[in-house]
This record gives sequence, structure tokens and C-alpha cells, in this order.
Amino acid sequence: MHISFLKGHGTENDFVLLPDVDAVLDLTPARVRALCDRRAGLGADGVLRVVRAKAVEGRPGDVDDDMWFMDYRNADGSVAEMCGNGLRVFARYLLDSGLVGEREFPVGTRAGVRAVRVDGNGEVAIDMGAARVGADSSVTTGGRRFAGVAVDVGNPHLVCIVDSLDDLDLSVPPTHDRELFPDGVNVEFVVVDGPERIRMRVHERGVGETRSCGTGTVAAVAGVLHARGETSGAADVHVPGGCVHVAISGKTSTLTGPAAFVARGEVDLTWWNALAERAE
Amino acid sequence: MHISFLKGHGTENDFVLLPDVDAVLDLTPARVRALCDRRAGLGADGVLRVVRAKAVEGRPGDVDDDMWFMDYRNADGSVAEMCGNGLRVFARYLLDSGLVGEREFPVGTRAGVRAVRVDGNGEVAIDMGAARVGADSSVTTGGRRFAGVAVDVGNPHLVCIVDSLDDLDLSVPPTHDRELFPDGVNVEFVVVDGPERIRMRVHERGVGETRSCGTGTVAAVAGVLHARGETSGAADVHVPGGCVHVAISGKTSTLTGPAAFVARGEVDLTWWNALAERAE
Repeated sequence: MHISFLKGHGTENDFVLLPDVDAVLDLTPARVRALCDRRAGLGADGVLRVVRAKAVEGRPGDVDDDMWFMDYRNADGSVAEMCGNGLRVFARYLLDSGLVGEREFPVGTRAGVRAVRVDGNGEVAIDMGAARVGADSSVTTGGRRFAGVAVDVGNPHLVCIVDSLDDLDLSVPPTHDRELFPDGVNVEFVVVDGPERIRMRVHERGVGETRSCGTGTVAAVAGVLHARGETSGAADVHVPGGCVHVAISGKTSTLTGPAAFVARGEVDLTWWNALAERAE
Repeated sequence: MHISFLKGHGTENDFVLLPDVDAVLDLTPARVRALCDRRAGLGADGVLRVVRAKAVEGRPGDVDDDMWFMDYRNADGSVAEMCGNGLRVFARYLLDSGLVGEREFPVGTRAGVRAVRVDGNGEVAIDMGAARVGADSSVTTGGRRFAGVAVDVGNPHLVCIVDSLDDLDLSVPPTHDRELFPDGVNVEFVVVDGPERIRMRVHERGVGETRSCGTGTVAAVAGVLHARGETSGAADVHVPGGCVHVAISGKTSTLTGPAAFVARGEVDLTWWNALAERAE
């Protein structure tokens, strides 16, 4: 039995993709952890299993049986609902491998169906749903306080417009308002370079500073528009891992960005079974 | 043109191995950096190119033209002379792939010929040369001073016997005697659990704390023997990335340890060329 994989990334958020079109893989948390181990394994931020939706128990009601389903797992083995960077890599694989025949198609996720479009240049556009601007708040990091605004993109964000990204200390989590964000918050620090160009750094809750955060880029643009008294618009968002484009209307948001494949091959099963056994 | 690779590790010191038996690869520093990038690439501590010695300019005089040569590169693209953990992975590949037919064979490296032996359990023994014990010295880290002894294993080490590894701060380089170690020093902190069992943590110069350091394990056993007034002996050395066995005689030393392959496949050339161009 061969276990095929691809390694890819979206703005340097990286994934091991496992095509499992016949739904035969027993993807235990220990096996996910082994794959994602950056020294003893292949190394990745998460695993994207490609499977038909009908094989996934407890899928959302709007996901049809015959849709391709993004079975996403975090590097720690836990199940996650959605990952914007991962969905770009996932969608590009479906088109490149011939599993879908059109450039626009729906993908099932644990957060429901997402409409995607793979452009001719390999960039992928995703409907990210509405970005809802909430209350003003603030965070403190490195002894400095930063004012910001809450934005909900299915998960909680605080967007802080700042003068410079160079002198921020994101080595520890910014302290936030625990009443407003009882489950923690992702914090975006944003410099506005022009009407349609922003730069940002992000601290993801439970993870630390990352090279990129898909929902964070949507939140950042929503927050910048809000500061201008606007509810729709678009901008290029430069993150440490690359650049994406975010467009926001009153009703929904679209995130467009790159998806790259680095390598493909086969996992060594002797290694995988031994390491997964150790990680149980 | 396909570029095949294997990903493997020795006690969690991990490598991308590139079989290049016809010596056709143009392995520029930028291409090495791209491969070793842990998010935009495959990710590794270094690259092991498998090539015939005759294709390597400036090889040591004791390396015959027809030997297999370990062309080792650090993740930053620089050329390195030797890597004990890498040599285990390299040697196991030569036997597993049928490029050598016997379990004992010589391998060419930039530090000269190394005799290796691949055991039936997949462990690999390497002749590491002499470990020369030098002067007493000390380092300071986390506000604490640790006495140790210098050991030369082709590169400089300071071996410090300590009571516990749990409370060491190795997040910054230990400060060392710059007269004794003008080019820096690798520092091993060693707990002696028994006559033939030690545990260690290591800070590698220019790198930081690592999961394993091959020459460091040899230095550690030499240092522990020296503290007992002995010049030969053997011990299991437990490092964060696993366990190796070191045997020291008056003349030479042998390091035996695991070599694991995680996956094999092909690098995506479109990605490799684009990222290497960006990294130039």
C-alpha cells in the first residue's frame, strides 16, 4: 500500500496534502503529528486530506455527498474547521490533478461549503463570507498599548493600525480584553501604505506569530475600511509569507492568493507506523 | 528532467538527500536554501548530494575517484566538511538503494574518507577519528558558570558535566573563553546516569540548541572518560532527538546510531527554479 503525498504552501503556511479519494486512510492524531513533525517527519503546519464528503461523519448539512471535502488537521493532530491558506492549496490540487474539470467549484469544509476559483496564473480566490466589524478595544505587547477594532471572520480578530511593523515584539501573546474575547483573539498589526496596499504582521492565538493568516488578512482590510468610514473596498495585503488580495463588499469577502506545490512522493510506511506508534 | 529526493533524519538532524549519480545537478547555494526552507520549501537542516567523488573538485587526496562522495551543504547554502548524523543517512541510502553491495564500505567526504558499517537493524556505525582532550575551561549561560574540558573531534567542543539538564537556559549562546576557542565552540552539558549511559543537551556554534550533534556525542563520552582518568570506553548517549552509542579507544572513536527515511519523491522544478531565483 502506497501513501502518496504532496507538500505545498499558501503564503508560507505549509501543508502535507494526502489524496485519499477512496477514503481508506486511517488518519489518527498520532499519524498527523508524525507527518507534521519538522525534524522526525515531513514537516508542516497541518494536513489536508482529499476525500469525498460522503466519507466524512458529521459534515455540515450544506455539504453534498459527492463534493470534494477538505479534511483539515492541525499539526497537533486536532481537527480544525477551516483554513483559508490551506483551501487555496487544496483547490489548486483538485484542478491540477483533474479531480474537478472547471475553474470554479464548491469545496466542502467543516465550516460549510466554500466557493473557490482557480485563476490561470495559479492563484486561487475563495469566498470567505462576511467580515463583521465589532467594538473598539486594545492590546498590550512589549509594554506598549495599541488601539484596535474587533472583526469577526468566523473567528475573532483585533485589527490595530500602527505606524511601523519593525519594532513590534510578538514573541509573547499580546494581552487582550478577556471579556470581549473570552476564547482569545488573533491580533493583526497593520501599516496602511496606500488606499489599496497594506502591510501586516499577525499573532495567531494558540500559535504565535505566523508568516500568514488568511482570515487575518480579511479582517485587516475590513478594519482599515472601517477606519475610513467605508464598508466595501479592496487591497493587496503584504504578509511576511507573501502577498494576497482581499475584496470586501457589504455581504461577503473574497481572498485571492498563491498556492504552490513544492514536491510530491510517497511516505515511508515503516517510518510512519513506527513514529505514529511512539506518538500515541 | 526529474529531480528525485529522499527526506530522512539521524536522531532528528534532518536532511534532503539528492541522488545525483550522473553528477548533472547544478546545486547552487540558492537552490540549497530553497530546498531547506521549512515553510516555502521541503525543509531540512542540510542537503546530502550523492555523487561520485570524481565529479567533486578539490576533494581530499585520500578520496578515490570511484568512491561515493557525500556532498554536504548547510541549510544556508554553504559547503560543510562533515556531518556525522548526515553520514549515517547517506550510508544507509547507499546500501538500501544498491549503490554499494557490502555492509562495510568507505565514503568520501570533504574531511577525507570515512569508514562506515550498516548493521542489520538499520543502525549505522561511523569511524569518527580521534577525540583529543585539551584544556580545562568554562562557559557561562543563564547567569551560571559551568566548568568543562575542551575536546577536539575535528571541530571544537567544551564538555561540562552537570547535575541536571532541566533548568539550563540554552536560548542564547553560552559565553566562552575566546582565547581558547577563537572560532567559537560547541558546548555539551552532560548528566552521567551510569558507567555506560549519559544524557546530554548541546548548543552548536552558529546554530543554537539542536536535537543532536554527532561530534558532540563523541566529545561528551571522551570528556566523561577523561573525568574518570580513562582514555577508552563506551556509552549510550541520549540526546533530545534519540540515542546513539559511542565507543572510544586511544586511537579513534566509533559513533553508532539510527538513520531513518521518512519519504521519497520528486521536487517540483517550477517551484524550485522560481524560489531559487528569488533567493539568489
